[in-house]
Amino acid sequence: MEDWSDCLDVAVQIARRAGQVVQSAVKQEKQVSSKSTPTDLVTEADHQVEELIISTLREKYPSHRFIGEESSAAGVKCELTDAPTWIIDPIDGTCNFVHSFPMVAVSIGFAVRKELELGVIYHCFDGTLYTARKGHGAFCNGVRLQVSKEKDVSKALILTEIGAKRDPATLDIFLGNMKKMLSAPTHGVRIIGSSTLALCHIASGAAEAYYQYGLHCWDIAAAAVIIREAGGCVIDTTGGPLDLMSRRVVAAGTREIADYVVKQLQPINYGRDDTDPDGLA
Amino acid sequence: MEDWSDCLDVAVQIARRAGQVVQSAVKQEKQVSSKSTPTDLVTEADHQVEELIISTLREKYPSHRFIGEESSAAGVKCELTDAPTWIIDPIDGTCNFVHSFPMVAVSIGFAVRKELELGVIYHCFDGTLYTARKGHGAFCNGVRLQVSKEKDVSKALILTEIGAKRDPATLDIFLGNMKKMLSAPTHGVRIIGSSTLALCHIASGAAEAYYQYGLHCWDIAAAAVIIREAGGCVIDTTGGPLDLMSRRVVAAGTREIADYVVKQLQPINYGRDDTDPDGLA
Repeated sequence: MEDWSDCLDVAVQIARRAGQVVQSAVKQEKQVSSKSTPTDLVTEADHQVEELIISTLREKYPSHRFIGEESSAAGVKCELTDAPTWIIDPIDGTCNFVHSFPMVAVSIGFAVRKELELGVIYHCFDGTLYTARKGHGAFCNGVRLQVSKEKDVSKALILTEIGAKRDPATLDIFLGNMKKMLSAPTHGVRIIGSSTLALCHIASGAAEAYYQYGLHCWDIAAAAVIIREAGGCVIDTTGGPLDLMSRRVVAAGTREIADYVVKQLQPINYGRDDTDPDGLA
Repeated sequence: MEDWSDCLDVAVQIARRAGQVVQSAVKQEKQVSSKSTPTDLVTEADHQVEELIISTLREKYPSHRFIGEESSAAGVKCELTDAPTWIIDPIDGTCNFVHSFPMVAVSIGFAVRKELELGVIYHCFDGTLYTARKGHGAFCNGVRLQVSKEKDVSKALILTEIGAKRDPATLDIFLGNMKKMLSAPTHGVRIIGSSTLALCHIASGAAEAYYQYGLHCWDIAAAAVIIREAGGCVIDTTGGPLDLMSRRVVAAGTREIADYVVKQLQPINYGRDDTDPDGLA
């Protein structure tokens, strides 16, 4: 059985290199356009960085498959097969990137036989590197990560993200979910604008739970390995097993906190990554 | 006329020292208790760091007065007179601090004849230092700051904080305001859990506007000088001049964006720092 440790080493090198490209691009004028909705932004840098990551990985691993945020937006089918597959978000937090708001990450996940095997997330502003390989622990800059063991929701810090849909009905559900989280009461809710970095805060124990409707498989893939290897759980918003293509997730340090969040949430339908790439189902 | 440049130098030294104490305290077990509401947290470190800052400044400037978050909570009257007055938040983002969520700052402002003269904010996790002195510009780690010149709200990133009151009526107004900001539409809303660091993002141009009900004079004092010296505006939520004791603020890169935010907001009453220290009016 392969242990994919060489893949982790390669992913770390590429994530660092891509992150440095992103960091340089922050200082430059950005060409911004929108994708599924006016608030679903993309820049030239997203395309360039994804191309850099995929071309480097393809040269090294010609038989592997790729799912990337920008390739998918350009019409490449987002399909997870049994083949070794890299799942890539070149710039997570594109809106933050556009504003030079300092929470932006490169995320590289890797799945084999539909199982997530490793994850690498690089914080492009402060250089923090999160890594994990299944069965071998999760690390931040080489230091072992451990999720929060808190089971009492009244002492929990909860993270979420807004999602690209901003129609009144979707916003009402989003804000209703946020009200439930604040009313528990919890210690509070944070929205930082980067799903992957928010998920890394679950892995490091800096927050107790994360939930979101509307994120994509490339936001979850790397982070799911990192959280699980730090001792946390990553599940579907219904409480069942994570479905990487379902565009929804609950992650938490403990199953107790995850179950509490699951019970509170009213769903928002964003379609699926594999059958409805526009998310307008 | 005094230029207070020696006071700025002293404040920078103390903010760095205090920030390092906070950073060490992050790694230790925290004694957490609550103040006005169950979500208004305070730790031993808040008291220790405020005592460190005030005692050091008092030794250097025995005739100056002090307004500090924890002294005020302990019953010291929060009163701004014409005397030179230091306005101090030893740990802004106490809830983040409790969770080791990496957005926590030391904030030191200084007013003379009720005019804000200088501000120093130190990010305790990454060591970023924001400084400004009236008439002499604002700086981040020595590099001049410039607010965003964006006037189009549809391209704006908006920041806010939740405040300590979590009763259903207050939450409905808070979430209603957030819905208006998201529906403009804007690029998005972020909640990072530290008012002073959020305000620093306005100064650096990483976001276009900040609004909040329920913050305190020690959250605004230093940041107001930094934003104004970076070219931005800091006003009351009604559109009039900032009232430091009013527990409400709108800050923005441009007056156009500030005016838009002012027009959208429904007020939340938190009382005043000078006449209603419990904020339960």
